[in-house]
Amino acid sequence: MPDAVRLADKLARFSDLWSPKIVAQFNGHDVMVVKVKGEFVWHSHPDTDDFFLVLQGNIVIQLADGEVRLGPGDLYVVPKGVQHRPVAEEEAHLLLIEPKGTPNTGDAATAAVKDAI
Amino acid sequence: MPDAVRLADKLARFSDLWSPKIVAQFNGHDVMVVKVKGEFVWHSHPDTDDFFLVLQGNIVIQLADGEVRLGPGDLYVVPKGVQHRPVAEEEAHLLLIEPKGTPNTGDAATAAVKDAI
Repeated sequence: MPDAVRLADKLARFSDLWSPKIVAQFNGHDVMVVKVKGEFVWHSHPDTDDFFLVLQGNIVIQLADGEVRLGPGDLYVVPKGVQHRPVAEEEAHLLLIEPKGTPNTGDAATAAVKDAI
Repeated sequence: MPDAVRLADKLARFSDLWSPKIVAQFNGHDVMVVKVKGEFVWHSHPDTDDFFLVLQGNIVIQLADGEVRLGPGDLYVVPKGVQHRPVAEEEAHLLLIEPKGTPNTGDAATAAVKDAI
C-alpha cells in the first residue's frame, strides 16, 4: 500500500532549484515537486504535455505568443511540442507531472536527474 | 493557447457532490475538481491508477487492508485494480486525474457524467 504523500513535508527536504523530486507514480508518469526561482531555459517536449500546479508563490510561463501568470492553486498544461520558459521572480513551489524519464529541459544532455524523495 | 486554470474559481461554480468537473486535459487524461462529503461507493478501476490531491478539507481513503488520511496538500495514488472507498466527514475539495472516460464509480452504469467547466 503506497503511503500518503505530504507535499509540504517533501518540499522541506531539499532546497536546490529547478531539480524535480519524484514523490509518486501515476499511470507511467512521475509526480514531482520542484522549487524554482529565476529563469529556466526555453524548451519543449515533443511527446508529452507538461503539467504545472503552483503550490506556493507565483510563476510566469512564457510562450511564443504570450505568457500565463500562475499563483497558488493555479494550474496550467503546456501542450506537447509547445516552446515555453518558466520564470519566477521569487522562489515558488510547483507540482509537476510528466511521463517517466522526460528530460526537464526537453534535452537528455542537459536535464536534471530526478531522484525520488 | 489554453488558459490558466484557477482551481478556486472552478470550485466556486458548482455545489453538487461526487460529480467531478473537467478543468483541463493532460496526456489523454481528464484533470478534474470535485466536492465530496459522506461515503462514496467501494470500487476499483481495472485499467488505471486513481490520483487524489486534497485542495481543502480532509478525506479518508478506505482500502481493504487499512486507510489513508489526507488533508490539504496531501496526495495519494490508488494503484489500478485496488478496491477503495473515499469518505469525508465534512465537505472536502479534491483534484483528480483519470484517463478520459474513466467511470468515477468504476462502473459505467452508475458513473457521474463529467462535464467540463
